[in-house]
Amino acid sequence: MIHPHTVVVTRRPAAWRRWAWGVLAVIGAGAHGDEGMWLFNAAPVARIERDHGVTLSPEWMLHLQRASVRFSSGGSGSFVSPDGLVLTNHHVGADSIQKLSDADHDLLRDGFHAASPAEEKKCHDLELNVLVSIDDVTPRVQEAVKPGMPADEAFQARRAAMAEIEKESLAATGLRSDVVTLYQGAIYHLYRFKKYTDVRLVFAPEQQIAFFGGDADNFEFPRYNLDICFFRAYENGTPAKVEHHLTWSPRPVAEGEVIFVSGHPGHTDRGATVAELVSLRDRRLPLDLRILNRFEATVGGYAGRGPEERRQAVHELHGIENGRKARAGVLAGLLDPRIMEAKRRSERELRSSMEASGEASPFQAIERAQHTLDGIAERYRLLEAASAFNSEFFRTARTILRAVTERDKPNGERLREYRDSNRESLELQLFSDEPIYDAFETVKLADSLTFLATTLGGDDDLVRQVLAGRSPAERAAELVAGTDLGRRPEGNRPDRRRALSEGGSAAVEASSDTMLALARLVDGESRRLRAIAEAADEEKKQAHAAIAKARFAREGTNAYPDATFTLRLACGVVAGGTQSGVAYPAITTYGGLFQRAASKGESPPFDLPPRWRAAQPSLGPAFMATPFNFASTADIIGGNSGSPVVNAAGELVGLIFDGNIDSLVLDVAYDDLRARAVAVDAVGIREALRQVYAATHLLDEVGAAAAN
Amino acid sequence: MIHPHTVVVTRRPAAWRRWAWGVLAVIGAGAHGDEGMWLFNAAPVARIERDHGVTLSPEWMLHLQRASVRFSSGGSGSFVSPDGLVLTNHHVGADSIQKLSDADHDLLRDGFHAASPAEEKKCHDLELNVLVSIDDVTPRVQEAVKPGMPADEAFQARRAAMAEIEKESLAATGLRSDVVTLYQGAIYHLYRFKKYTDVRLVFAPEQQIAFFGGDADNFEFPRYNLDICFFRAYENGTPAKVEHHLTWSPRPVAEGEVIFVSGHPGHTDRGATVAELVSLRDRRLPLDLRILNRFEATVGGYAGRGPEERRQAVHELHGIENGRKARAGVLAGLLDPRIMEAKRRSERELRSSMEASGEASPFQAIERAQHTLDGIAERYRLLEAASAFNSEFFRTARTILRAVTERDKPNGERLREYRDSNRESLELQLFSDEPIYDAFETVKLADSLTFLATTLGGDDDLVRQVLAGRSPAERAAELVAGTDLGRRPEGNRPDRRRALSEGGSAAVEASSDTMLALARLVDGESRRLRAIAEAADEEKKQAHAAIAKARFAREGTNAYPDATFTLRLACGVVAGGTQSGVAYPAITTYGGLFQRAASKGESPPFDLPPRWRAAQPSLGPAFMATPFNFASTADIIGGNSGSPVVNAAGELVGLIFDGNIDSLVLDVAYDDLRARAVAVDAVGIREALRQVYAATHLLDEVGAAAAN
Repeated sequence: MIHPHTVVVTRRPAAWRRWAWGVLAVIGAGAHGDEGMWLFNAAPVARIERDHGVTLSPEWMLHLQRASVRFSSGGSGSFVSPDGLVLTNHHVGADSIQKLSDADHDLLRDGFHAASPAEEKKCHDLELNVLVSIDDVTPRVQEAVKPGMPADEAFQARRAAMAEIEKESLAATGLRSDVVTLYQGAIYHLYRFKKYTDVRLVFAPEQQIAFFGGDADNFEFPRYNLDICFFRAYENGTPAKVEHHLTWSPRPVAEGEVIFVSGHPGHTDRGATVAELVSLRDRRLPLDLRILNRFEATVGGYAGRGPEERRQAVHELHGIENGRKARAGVLAGLLDPRIMEAKRRSERELRSSMEASGEASPFQAIERAQHTLDGIAERYRLLEAASAFNSEFFRTARTILRAVTERDKPNGERLREYRDSNRESLELQLFSDEPIYDAFETVKLADSLTFLATTLGGDDDLVRQVLAGRSPAERAAELVAGTDLGRRPEGNRPDRRRALSEGGSAAVEASSDTMLALARLVDGESRRLRAIAEAADEEKKQAHAAIAKARFAREGTNAYPDATFTLRLACGVVAGGTQSGVAYPAITTYGGLFQRAASKGESPPFDLPPRWRAAQPSLGPAFMATPFNFASTADIIGGNSGSPVVNAAGELVGLIFDGNIDSLVLDVAYDDLRARAVAVDAVGIREALRQVYAATHLLDEVGAAAAN
Repeated sequence: MIHPHTVVVTRRPAAWRRWAWGVLAVIGAGAHGDEGMWLFNAAPVARIERDHGVTLSPEWMLHLQRASVRFSSGGSGSFVSPDGLVLTNHHVGADSIQKLSDADHDLLRDGFHAASPAEEKKCHDLELNVLVSIDDVTPRVQEAVKPGMPADEAFQARRAAMAEIEKESLAATGLRSDVVTLYQGAIYHLYRFKKYTDVRLVFAPEQQIAFFGGDADNFEFPRYNLDICFFRAYENGTPAKVEHHLTWSPRPVAEGEVIFVSGHPGHTDRGATVAELVSLRDRRLPLDLRILNRFEATVGGYAGRGPEERRQAVHELHGIENGRKARAGVLAGLLDPRIMEAKRRSERELRSSMEASGEASPFQAIERAQHTLDGIAERYRLLEAASAFNSEFFRTARTILRAVTERDKPNGERLREYRDSNRESLELQLFSDEPIYDAFETVKLADSLTFLATTLGGDDDLVRQVLAGRSPAERAAELVAGTDLGRRPEGNRPDRRRALSEGGSAAVEASSDTMLALARLVDGESRRLRAIAEAADEEKKQAHAAIAKARFAREGTNAYPDATFTLRLACGVVAGGTQSGVAYPAITTYGGLFQRAASKGESPPFDLPPRWRAAQPSLGPAFMATPFNFASTADIIGGNSGSPVVNAAGELVGLIFDGNIDSLVLDVAYDDLRARAVAVDAVGIREALRQVYAATHLLDEVGAAAAN
């Protein structure tokens, strides 16, 4: 599929999410080793007891579930105090931290520390979700689709049923309600979430210690990253009182110890058919990389213009570098003949038994649907995924245009992200008044218009209409100059977003805003491509459901569904490994951090923040020996960033922030021999807060002040 | 065309050459304004006298010609002392400077200064050429091609005639002899060059002052770059005595002053037909950018691993960034509807008059040939241009394989770069013992193998054979581990290049070197693609010759040929301009340098080398007011880097190092309104050598010590 997997389609693409992907598919053969991203209502309790000698009680599970937090910006986190304090990764919070920064306050670079609740900074558009309940709604969703329905009608019927269930649930409970597709269409669950939309920044270290080693060390181990930050959920203007929060473990993890990860893996393709994987390998990922590579050059070039331009662009640049490295890792896995051969083998037997029955082959149906998707992939990416119009202004313009158009339709007939039950979340994003920088937007837009022109050809009709007789750079400047759809720190032009949205179709049609005009110009073609993609996805969904059914019949239902940015439990042990023949340890220390910085001459990205340099002489041998980061065999993927890691007692022992380079292939195939999840040690965090940041009130609040 | 335009095809692609291109074509309508890259035997003396009031005598012309120097690494320069001292750009010399550096001596970063001739460092593979004579050999080249010959035979016949002329000339004169194609096949000249292959590094400033502002300021003006370095030509182990050298002007240039540029513009496409330009816009440049963008991410990622990796990669990284920005500039020009419309208009009239005659249309012939070239462009790029095997080791392996194979054929039947008259230059490159770094080669090779696999698809037969059952990264490591075709600073494996070359086909066939095996594996397909391209180029050449003939008949021969990396004269005036509506001055000063560094907080790439920081307090107001860089309307392009700029008296007033962003479009169309050539001021150089570097012996040698 081509859609991003974000739960809500927001006015900006889901923020930097390590290892985030696109093609959805059901899971393959039964799990083995520490494989598995388990649903909280279907955890393999017996297997964990057998393999690890740990018994997970229902209370233990519920406590962990309710203490787990999902970030709308695309990551995970957990409550760590009764007063709504939330711990997550710095890189999960970075999107919000960047939006709270300006030319005179670079919170990303310098860090942030609220000395009291009054100083906590309210985020522009961050939403937190806590999973309250799971209900199976499969029959109602499946019954909406009648046998023999054409794919486009089936898609619409299913969409309408889901929107209706969600709207009813929201009305009945007041909780955010999302129908989630599992096993690629075999199962549908209704997830209800407690939602927090007033979220404030409490503490962030300097990005240079959070992301020490930068792109060079990203997806590597050993690592030395204090990739943490704290937010606080508020309700009615005061800190939220939460029933469940994790307590800080007084002991660091030990090699070989069993650990559990509770978080929101974003997306995996382990159940994809060979046809889908070949498309991913030969088309989708190369196209992704082409776009990311050119975007990296463009944004990197802008960042190189000077310190303020760098401040504006650095967060986006990190996200691009990360996405490039992640995709290259999956591609490398798919280009490894052994992995693809294993996929072919595992598919062959099931496929021939299904095709022998004489019924229409679901594998062939997927091949056909994939062929359709491949045929429109470039245009879809350019128009519907808006890679041709890479600007906050354009994304806002399209959201406004579609929001007012869709609002005039019945709830069940709308594009899915405009359903009633999602309106509040959508508007939190749409009306966010984060600063937008004209020069940056112009550079990105000029580059993406060039990408449009070179992909479709300079003489293409749509290209001519979009460029309107100008060169891409001139046209980009003109489009940015003529829009009022964002807040400019440089000037004080009024922001027209709320007025246009409230004014409805009439106001939008009457507007002369350049970006709205552009969004209108391409919307017909863009929607046409989306409808084709949605129908093809529906065909794949039905085929995958048939495959899943056959697989359940052969192998039982002891399998977990592919990741869908819903809460999952993973289990593993703390373990080192080998890379390129060299063994590495399971746990790193602060001493290792200073050694690595010194070995690289402290040249960027291996430089230390001034605070750390200043503190170094006074940090004793006990601090240097304190665990900093650790590796484990837990089965995680992008979206798990910020996930709490707990021990058998349910105490917080760390938080996930990365996987090693061999973990990137987990998108398509589990590998517990070499893949490792990488986490910050909770005791390491405590000691940094105590000895480097003197953040005693935070230590008091999380109840970690006394130990060592 | 797809071939690089380097005069010799060397074991590495022509070094970093600002604005270097591919598609050749004859020139369009007559020159206007300061347009023109004139042949030295056909300079528009009368027009210059009329427009600028300066009379260029034959002696003036001959002196400038013989003082001008061409660099095999892809740039220009000039003799500035009777003892063979050569002035060029730092970025032209950087390839040689990088090869003279190692982990303990970073001459690029720290600069170099030989206090005496004994300390001058011999370059690994640098060749300098000085143009001695020009002879018209058009009849002999044209007569080789008989009417009605198929294109492939015509190509071979023409190639044989050129190789024969060159071999005869070399035997008769001992001079390097190249037959040069002008007006895209209407005219052929024999160029004879005095050749220097013992070239030594004398002085280079720190790269940070040579390239102050880095990629951000590249192709911009105002500029502040000391983009200079000095080499010395040697003969028989002693400094070469040269008859012609330029004298240093005691005065800086003034706004409005007439200046002349003598250098080697590499390539322009101003005479390309619309069909060729559309291909350039929609296919060639997008493919170039796709390759450059991914290469930038790969090499940048390697450079980010640490200071030593950065040292190894930084020169290559600058070249990639430069190439990316240059191509983006040409593409922007081609995407400007006004430029393309002007091209269409100017072609329309000539084309309809030619097609009305009822003869076969050369424009249609070019369209057909271009279609053929477009059809093989990706595979050609991957295989024959070796973008799939981006490693010094592979390029060396192929050169050895082909050198021994071609040597067994008659001179006239060989691939052109293996003709007898080019053997010495080829072997200078092939046997260069510059250091090669296994880890860097492995990273580049793994990335390019991935590019191969994703472009042709993971199931393509050739891809399977190349990868041999491994993932790209594993295969790259295996290939690098199994080759002995370069000098490793890390180890002491023997370098087998010379032995294999001398051993001939038998030795090469018997070798088990992995890179030779890879070169052998792809050589058949690669040569097949090259033969198709050469035949299509021949068809274009004949068609362009017919167009040129018709154009000469209509417009007279008062036109200059497209650039071909042969010596040209350009003329212009020192002038500022406007960019994005903001006026900029013609001349910058050292005071401006320090201001710009301060305004950017001296953060990279706006930091100053330690020597400059230390000197700053002692540099007085006179130094600060000294001209540093200047802009002019001279018509230049990539390859002109390092070209001397002289005044009416023939004195050196500067050297070209860049063009502004609006000059990039000069590849396809001249524009004297906004395009500017950018040069370092000679007086600025003198004062930096005196006051910052205390290089008194250099000042004495160039006769610039006394002035101010």
